[in-house]
Amino acid sequence: MKLTIKKDILLDALNKVSKAISTKNLIPVLAGIKFDLKKNKLTLTASDNDITIQTFITAASDDEFKVEKEGSIIVQGKYMLDIVRKLPDKYINIEVFDELKILIYTENSEFRLNGISEEEYPKINLDESKKKVVINNKVFKEIVSQTAFASSNEETKPILTGINFNIVGNILECNSTDSYRLARKVVELDKADTENYNIVIPSHNIIEFSRILDDDDKSNIELHISNNKILFIYKQLKFQSRLISGTYPNTSNLIPKEDFLVITTNIQDLYNVIDRASILTSDKDKNIVTLETEGNLLILKSSSQEIGRVEEKMNIEKNNSENIKISFSAKYMMEALKSFSTEKVEIHFVGEIKPILVKSKEDETITQLVLPIRTY
Amino acid sequence: MKLTIKKDILLDALNKVSKAISTKNLIPVLAGIKFDLKKNKLTLTASDNDITIQTFITAASDDEFKVEKEGSIIVQGKYMLDIVRKLPDKYINIEVFDELKILIYTENSEFRLNGISEEEYPKINLDESKKKVVINNKVFKEIVSQTAFASSNEETKPILTGINFNIVGNILECNSTDSYRLARKVVELDKADTENYNIVIPSHNIIEFSRILDDDDKSNIELHISNNKILFIYKQLKFQSRLISGTYPNTSNLIPKEDFLVITTNIQDLYNVIDRASILTSDKDKNIVTLETEGNLLILKSSSQEIGRVEEKMNIEKNNSENIKISFSAKYMMEALKSFSTEKVEIHFVGEIKPILVKSKEDETITQLVLPIRTY
Repeated sequence: MKLTIKKDILLDALNKVSKAISTKNLIPVLAGIKFDLKKNKLTLTASDNDITIQTFITAASDDEFKVEKEGSIIVQGKYMLDIVRKLPDKYINIEVFDELKILIYTENSEFRLNGISEEEYPKINLDESKKKVVINNKVFKEIVSQTAFASSNEETKPILTGINFNIVGNILECNSTDSYRLARKVVELDKADTENYNIVIPSHNIIEFSRILDDDDKSNIELHISNNKILFIYKQLKFQSRLISGTYPNTSNLIPKEDFLVITTNIQDLYNVIDRASILTSDKDKNIVTLETEGNLLILKSSSQEIGRVEEKMNIEKNNSENIKISFSAKYMMEALKSFSTEKVEIHFVGEIKPILVKSKEDETITQLVLPIRTY
Repeated sequence: MKLTIKKDILLDALNKVSKAISTKNLIPVLAGIKFDLKKNKLTLTASDNDITIQTFITAASDDEFKVEKEGSIIVQGKYMLDIVRKLPDKYINIEVFDELKILIYTENSEFRLNGISEEEYPKINLDESKKKVVINNKVFKEIVSQTAFASSNEETKPILTGINFNIVGNILECNSTDSYRLARKVVELDKADTENYNIVIPSHNIIEFSRILDDDDKSNIELHISNNKILFIYKQLKFQSRLISGTYPNTSNLIPKEDFLVITTNIQDLYNVIDRASILTSDKDKNIVTLETEGNLLILKSSSQEIGRVEEKMNIEKNNSENIKISFSAKYMMEALKSFSTEKVEIHFVGEIKPILVKSKEDETITQLVLPIRTY
């Protein structure tokens, strides 16, 4: 393998795949990045057994990339990334010598790294499926940022550590719950000629993938779903994750159909009021605050024997003259509110011990649900 | 105690003193900030037994600060800071009620915090000494940033965890060493009518104080030195630290008087070359790199059996035709180089097993010394 490549292009590709480099070092080869140079195309692959990331660079012009000899090798990922990042030169030369040694050089710098034979790399199948689901990049990033936070971190309930993607016809419903709150995003897909799917993608992995996606980019993402894994394809990038096996709980019956009171308010104001009301609460008791209405006044309270107590007030709109008194986790409610990018929000109350529904007329694709906490 | 105060002014004062709030919580009263309101002056004090920070706010105008009733109380520091930071209002009202409760309120927010009687606060003497040393803020910040990094973190040698301030006449010499390297800054003081001092200030504390100082401010700092403590006074702020007892090692004989080779180079270029040469080294063996000269070529090398090896080259100026081969810690040399804000730097070599001296003709107040490491 021998090539000359523009630094910025190589660095961008290394940055992307290096997210999948295994840091646990149990299997040395997984701490590496596989370089495959074939027919003017350099393919980089990294995998930690949980996710696999692959990207490629093609020689659009000699100016960007010049191949002198094809070949494959596994390079130690962490060091390769650091070297390319710190080299000041515009172009970098890479050459395999003595079979398993890699020479990386520019005018004044020479690095010789020990490599590993590409034959030792695990066989990873990144084949596309026959049918695919297509989602716009912007919509996909929204799905992740508006639902993933509600997943569980507890490995005791593996199924709840993922986001449920439920596709029926051209409707994609995404659910994420840790059993104390639920985040739901429903989007319409452009094409309806796909199969129906009901899968659970590990939240941690989908967040990692979402971070690689460019902001303000209108490209599409292809989802290739098979039995136990999902392959995302985005521009030159392939990102594969395992799926979580098991049946995701049916969350539809959790979402109340009726309510006795709806309050409407500015999101940011409500967020700030809850934030202040929770200053004296502690994480370990889930930052419990109590919300009360008195006419068009919303009152938020919390108290702690040792520290003290807070009372915050704000004006709200109501759909009727009913009043409510209900307690919930400030942290969960604030995360639910943060998922909206709208100006106003509606809080639907069904009863003092019934889930609280958070919605917005300006964006009906999101539904957030927070369970109340009994304080007596 | 009862007052109304402009939020920004109170927040600034709280931010400053809260650096001294004890987070260990062994003595509850030290997790508090003492409020003293007397004759139109609000004094805030916090202390963790190691450092004490005090600042005051005076009522320059009713617009900033309005006193209704004098008094004193200890408020839980962390919560007070959080409350004031998150309140959106321009003015904040603070009132002590039921003797030991504090009411903090604005139009829509009401916090009631449990307080502690000011009588329980430790007696802390922040008296000024008769004679004082005066240092310009900018110079003081330089002293700290150019020397503190070289102090030891190991509590087994307490004296080396501090910076030595040695004042003789109008010359202040600051030394900091962990016994592998030495950072020295020598400055001329404006007034020479002070006494001579030879003290050791804990690096951690002086760094903390330096962070509170405003950037680009030309005010002076007063140093009031007594037997076992130092009091810094900067504008409305008093910052007191204990001193480390014991005799600081005489570092003057460490600094070589002669050299057989001096190389001159651009600092940033040399920094980058050493940075790259150390990519394949590890922290645990002090990131050892080897420097060699070959005529006007500087060659930096490092290697690791498992990972690989690097060779970096750059052009330098030399004062004669001698050559050197010497190994040292890349981390220590990079930290030494970073302390200069000049364009060029001189590296003085005395011998292969003698300290390496780093100086700059453009700023002769700094001397950095890095010990070589034997690699055979």
